[in-house]
Amino acid sequence: MSFTRPEPPYYAVIITSTLDADNLDGYAEMDARMGELGRAQPGYLGRESKTDADGHELTVLYYRDAESIAAWKRHPEHREAQRRGREQWYAGYHIEVARVERAYGFERE
Amino acid sequence: MSFTRPEPPYYAVIITSTLDADNLDGYAEMDARMGELGRAQPGYLGRESKTDADGHELTVLYYRDAESIAAWKRHPEHREAQRRGREQWYAGYHIEVARVERAYGFERE
Repeated sequence: MSFTRPEPPYYAVIITSTLDADNLDGYAEMDARMGELGRAQPGYLGRESKTDADGHELTVLYYRDAESIAAWKRHPEHREAQRRGREQWYAGYHIEVARVERAYGFERE
Repeated sequence: MSFTRPEPPYYAVIITSTLDADNLDGYAEMDARMGELGRAQPGYLGRESKTDADGHELTVLYYRDAESIAAWKRHPEHREAQRRGREQWYAGYHIEVARVERAYGFERE
């Protein structure tokens, strides 16, 4: 995993999305800006993300609590990015807000 | 997204894992068998998964409820696969069990 999690409970936002390959003007800049701004939000913990060659992305963003997620969703600059995403960059996306109840794992010595 | 979700609440198991590229004997067969067996478990809803070239995988498995997850975790054949995974195939993994509280999205017309 790419960052150290706190003890549960905490929150995960699971995003499956598909970019529209023909309409990516301005996307890279906005994506970089949203990454920078998003990482600076109160309650942001970290992320896991994988994208395949045809623009299908699976991302999990982690937050301390549900209020941190709601606050980021209504951030003015992020709202504008969401609007442009729906109008232009994304063919579709699906977002799930989930409460992590338990976690475990192992790492080879 | 790769399958149609029910209305929340439902459950997500978020798995980040790294395969040990030098110890994959028998892995493909077991992975195929666990996929087949896992899809047939009561309460299984579907999955999203992405793997990059160096064996890092991000997978989300979806279930109707927490009991379905617990039952699959203690399935005898799956327990044996978990044991071999820790001993041989995986350099590490991290598993989070999360309750999906809300979901939304859009699909371009």
